[in-house]
Amino acid sequence: MLEHFFSPKTVAVIGASREKGKVGHDILKNLIQHGYKGTIFPVNPKAEDILGLKTYSTLKDIPEKPDLAIIVVPAQYVGKIVDECAEKKIDSIIVISAGFKESGIEGSIREKELYQKITRHSIRMLGPNCLGLIDTQSCLNASFAADMPEKGNIAFFSQSGALCTAILDWAAEECVGFSKFISMGNKTDINEVDLINAMYEDENTKVILGYLEGVKNGNDFIAAARKTAKKKPLIIVKSGGTAAGSKAASSHTGTLAGSEKAFDAAFKQSGVIRANTIEQLFDYARIFSYQQLPKGARVALITNAGGPGIIAADAIERSELQMAELSKDTIETLRRSLPPMANVYNPIDVLGDAKSDRYQFVIESVIKDPNADAILVILTPQAMTEIEKTAEVITEIANRTDKTIATSFIGGKRTESALKIMCQRKVPNYPFPERAISAIEAMYKYTLWQNKPAPEIKNFVMRKEPVQAIFEQVKKAGTTYLSEESAKQVISSYGFTIPKSIIAASETEATKAAKAIGYPVVMKISSPDILHKSDIGGVIVGVKNEQEVKGHFSDIMRKARHHMPEAELKGIMIQQMVAGGKETVLGVSHDPQFGHLIMFGLGGIYVEVLKDVTFRIAPVDKNEAREMIQEIRSFPLLRGVRGEKSVDMDAIVENILRLSQLVTDFPEIIEMDINPLVVFPEGNGAIAIDARIAIHASPPERTN
Amino acid sequence: MLEHFFSPKTVAVIGASREKGKVGHDILKNLIQHGYKGTIFPVNPKAEDILGLKTYSTLKDIPEKPDLAIIVVPAQYVGKIVDECAEKKIDSIIVISAGFKESGIEGSIREKELYQKITRHSIRMLGPNCLGLIDTQSCLNASFAADMPEKGNIAFFSQSGALCTAILDWAAEECVGFSKFISMGNKTDINEVDLINAMYEDENTKVILGYLEGVKNGNDFIAAARKTAKKKPLIIVKSGGTAAGSKAASSHTGTLAGSEKAFDAAFKQSGVIRANTIEQLFDYARIFSYQQLPKGARVALITNAGGPGIIAADAIERSELQMAELSKDTIETLRRSLPPMANVYNPIDVLGDAKSDRYQFVIESVIKDPNADAILVILTPQAMTEIEKTAEVITEIANRTDKTIATSFIGGKRTESALKIMCQRKVPNYPFPERAISAIEAMYKYTLWQNKPAPEIKNFVMRKEPVQAIFEQVKKAGTTYLSEESAKQVISSYGFTIPKSIIAASETEATKAAKAIGYPVVMKISSPDILHKSDIGGVIVGVKNEQEVKGHFSDIMRKARHHMPEAELKGIMIQQMVAGGKETVLGVSHDPQFGHLIMFGLGGIYVEVLKDVTFRIAPVDKNEAREMIQEIRSFPLLRGVRGEKSVDMDAIVENILRLSQLVTDFPEIIEMDINPLVVFPEGNGAIAIDARIAIHASPPERTN
Repeated sequence: MLEHFFSPKTVAVIGASREKGKVGHDILKNLIQHGYKGTIFPVNPKAEDILGLKTYSTLKDIPEKPDLAIIVVPAQYVGKIVDECAEKKIDSIIVISAGFKESGIEGSIREKELYQKITRHSIRMLGPNCLGLIDTQSCLNASFAADMPEKGNIAFFSQSGALCTAILDWAAEECVGFSKFISMGNKTDINEVDLINAMYEDENTKVILGYLEGVKNGNDFIAAARKTAKKKPLIIVKSGGTAAGSKAASSHTGTLAGSEKAFDAAFKQSGVIRANTIEQLFDYARIFSYQQLPKGARVALITNAGGPGIIAADAIERSELQMAELSKDTIETLRRSLPPMANVYNPIDVLGDAKSDRYQFVIESVIKDPNADAILVILTPQAMTEIEKTAEVITEIANRTDKTIATSFIGGKRTESALKIMCQRKVPNYPFPERAISAIEAMYKYTLWQNKPAPEIKNFVMRKEPVQAIFEQVKKAGTTYLSEESAKQVISSYGFTIPKSIIAASETEATKAAKAIGYPVVMKISSPDILHKSDIGGVIVGVKNEQEVKGHFSDIMRKARHHMPEAELKGIMIQQMVAGGKETVLGVSHDPQFGHLIMFGLGGIYVEVLKDVTFRIAPVDKNEAREMIQEIRSFPLLRGVRGEKSVDMDAIVENILRLSQLVTDFPEIIEMDINPLVVFPEGNGAIAIDARIAIHASPPERTN
Repeated sequence: MLEHFFSPKTVAVIGASREKGKVGHDILKNLIQHGYKGTIFPVNPKAEDILGLKTYSTLKDIPEKPDLAIIVVPAQYVGKIVDECAEKKIDSIIVISAGFKESGIEGSIREKELYQKITRHSIRMLGPNCLGLIDTQSCLNASFAADMPEKGNIAFFSQSGALCTAILDWAAEECVGFSKFISMGNKTDINEVDLINAMYEDENTKVILGYLEGVKNGNDFIAAARKTAKKKPLIIVKSGGTAAGSKAASSHTGTLAGSEKAFDAAFKQSGVIRANTIEQLFDYARIFSYQQLPKGARVALITNAGGPGIIAADAIERSELQMAELSKDTIETLRRSLPPMANVYNPIDVLGDAKSDRYQFVIESVIKDPNADAILVILTPQAMTEIEKTAEVITEIANRTDKTIATSFIGGKRTESALKIMCQRKVPNYPFPERAISAIEAMYKYTLWQNKPAPEIKNFVMRKEPVQAIFEQVKKAGTTYLSEESAKQVISSYGFTIPKSIIAASETEATKAAKAIGYPVVMKISSPDILHKSDIGGVIVGVKNEQEVKGHFSDIMRKARHHMPEAELKGIMIQQMVAGGKETVLGVSHDPQFGHLIMFGLGGIYVEVLKDVTFRIAPVDKNEAREMIQEIRSFPLLRGVRGEKSVDMDAIVENILRLSQLVTDFPEIIEMDINPLVVFPEGNGAIAIDARIAIHASPPERTN
């Protein structure tokens, strides 16, 4: 995929320049000087030769069809050049030029036109307003970055060009190599989804990194990420999520940043490893690039200093990792050979006077221990410490074991040459142990995700027609909210259990209905015009007998007429009174990037005050629904405390799935609450007591 | 304080050695070669001259009294040398030698004897089992560290010697200088409290850093830290807090690590800034060392790249800081002078082509803006960027403004020389913006703490005698738990309101009592032998009238006799039935390092399932008590949701203070629960429904 971008045989640079310091010059120089083997065609009407290459006045003059065209002309000429590319049947272009969406209204219009043009001609485009891209495999540096990164197996794509230049400079110091390095610019055509899909295919890429401020199409992103993460780690820093951040984001690239919740859910559901900082992005990248995945959570620590060992043990305790409990054999072996003062339990303290041979002996012993999945070797430079030699020993072992090995050599000048050794031989070193543990944890969590079954979306057979009819009616009326009755009818059509209810137009009908439903009952005014029924005294709960029904009937009707004389009154709804069970809440909101978000939480104050809720992007599958229930803090209340029985978890799962299917079938739903969904003890199901649904006249648009 | 340790006029090295690589050699060499101006007396019976210095056979032979003796002889001879020190009236010694508590039982005994000896002779001792100490002001390097740090205003003390060597090496690279650098070893005599007090006095120290695995005396620590933190920042990494960590800690230094909760509370109460990692310790140290405290929370971001600006804005949003809203004047000024594409709102985007003059103009404008308290300048190396010159501009301004300024120059080689400039001119640079924001936040939170009033412990006039009597009785009986009646009597003596209750021996007494208290009442079997009253049907709530009282009386007595025929029955307790209000819990636990911890939370599932509780170390003052209430997650439930009235916060505060005084007056209390403490709406107080108290025969010992 996108071969012409990453390994073109011929490249044209339109806007190539003789003038040093100009972007059109730097790009050409980068193409020439890093060993690219293909043919380069500079295009510049005012030059015959640039940097020793024959230069063409126009694209047309080039004797063959270039695989890739890099466009570096001022924004207002880009359209014309694209026309020429189309004539020449060029299918891949990089537009470096700025002056599009990021620069205001005029630029936005220009960008739209550009997009229409390339779509018409089936041209794929990277940019505009980007730094270009680098492929170290084909030695292609089609960017104006000042550096060419080392070859490596890490691919990086970024929504910020400036960050690209900073990272290239920084990565050189940190000895991080790249397979591909891509600045996406305004993402008018090629975006994260295309690149993830391309990296998925790329044999030279083992780890995919991204810096994102938003995604173009949430569902496509999830699909691409989910597929890719099964094969290789996809680690992303997403910024612009918080209120302040997204303010900055929209003034920056015009991206409407998705809410944090939606991104969190999307990443969780698609196996994306989220890095919180750029530093963490590369901390993670290095271990994934260099090491094998751990088979489990158990980490052995080997250290020549107590303090850092404790620091690492603390970090493990705070993580999802575990301290390895070494086998008896290992402990015996260590005890026999280490000095008596050494600690042979995890963390293994090889003591301050340990030379490389003692480290070697201990690491050799621990890699044989079936109780350890990963090893962190900690070293502080002390008088006797053989720093380089220990690095050599560690890397030699690391290259022949299938356990995950990382190091934390703590120091400055003294550890420098050892770090070089480690870097060359692919053992990730971290300046402090906590960062090493965090990286190992990221790997471990990734293995957990990889082992999960792929989501299977269940399709219930539902009665779509009544829902369709109700929605059409609402749309026709030009309103947004459904009446309570309609909302309940909708969820009932999708298999939710709702309380039995009958609308009674008279006292007699009311007493008959109450008898049929069974006492006690709830009485509610029924009117499409009255939304807040309680406020006008339109709801009475716990109505116990015929006499009470009669009394309340006239009373409620009178109050309704008094408070809202204009309202159309259909009568009084007699409803089954639900007792017992636990109140939960199901909800739906709509995110402009990812579409429908399903929410679950405990009812009442748990949602309102403690905000103890969880989200997933629809559609969700059974396992995801179960995870939602388990990850709220108040989950123990559902499972039952103090000898209580558990609530019917399967009923919650099923209701989540039904809700997920409802919003998938009807994208016009923009907001929904099922509150409360009362859940009964195991095996006894759940009842949706109340529902609110808001729809949009037309299905909500995605940002593009 | 401890002058002889930090600026001795004369130093003896007992165990000085001619042999390179020996600790006794390295220490002598360190003393000589870093410019120490005092007199050095090497002591070695087998040498006349070491490293060009006249060497003495024994301490006795030295013609004068050395201010400081450094002991580097094998552990078994240390005692004898200390005797000689005592004869010579030496009052300050550093014991470098290992072979004490850290090495097993024999070593522990040796350490105890050593401690007794120095106490007897009023000698102060650093160590044993330490690296020594460094004072850059007096050019004293009394350690066997391989490096001499730069002069600086940061003091560092560490419970891990190996960490010291690693940090010295690392700090040299990072251009961090120190005033004092101390390895505490086993902390047998001099510990963190002595050092904090000494650094408090030290004029050359602006920031105090510590690495701790535990503290010797919690109360002394809090007192010293609280006093010191009012004057200068005290930043500590505490490790060994988690279960795995403290396992490692006790096998390492024999320190019984205090629980995380206790340390968190102690740090919070004493203004200690807690760093989570060593990296963060120095991230914080640099900004405190270089910059002035911000006057408020508002941060302005200036960047030449959008992405990093968004990253920083996100970090601010997640912190307690705020994005500065620039004044109209500033925005106008910027708009007038910056290119039209620049973003003149915070984050201010000076654009990729910004040279140093544009940075200068913007920073000058922002430091005049009253709406900004701190400024983070972000730079990514782009084609036009003047990296060094911008660093010069920033540092020049930073040195004449009273606003807090930090930078985040992102890159590698390209930014290196700029970082040197920044470091020399005291502007802290962070490789990524998130770390800069975290450091500014630490400063801001410190200013908040500094502005808090000093805690004032209120002393209620309490009836101590009845409590004393009850405790003596319990101790005499050799039990631990007080009966419910006694526990309630105890808290009632300390001013807690408890439900009215009367013990009735007969039906007649019972009905009389119930009438006096007022219906409805609770009836409970009263017996010192029956702990779980409900289990035998010994508790009835909501007893409504005389007839019911009579019925239940005989019923409860019969059940009690049936289930526990041996129990002594005092009759039935008739108790006021408390209705309404919100259930909270007050508790006390005992930490071996810090003493009594006071706990507060909401009752029931909030404590049991959601673990939504908070702790402070006793004694607490009014403000601390109020903070406890406000920091639980479910605080909004107390303040009132959905139009409810707030509960009586003052009553909770007062009860916390009374509890604090109770455990301070009676250290033998080792565990306590007041559960529930029912709190009524504002102005209506609180009632302690039930109490449990456990005491220790003798006041619990502190770890030493």
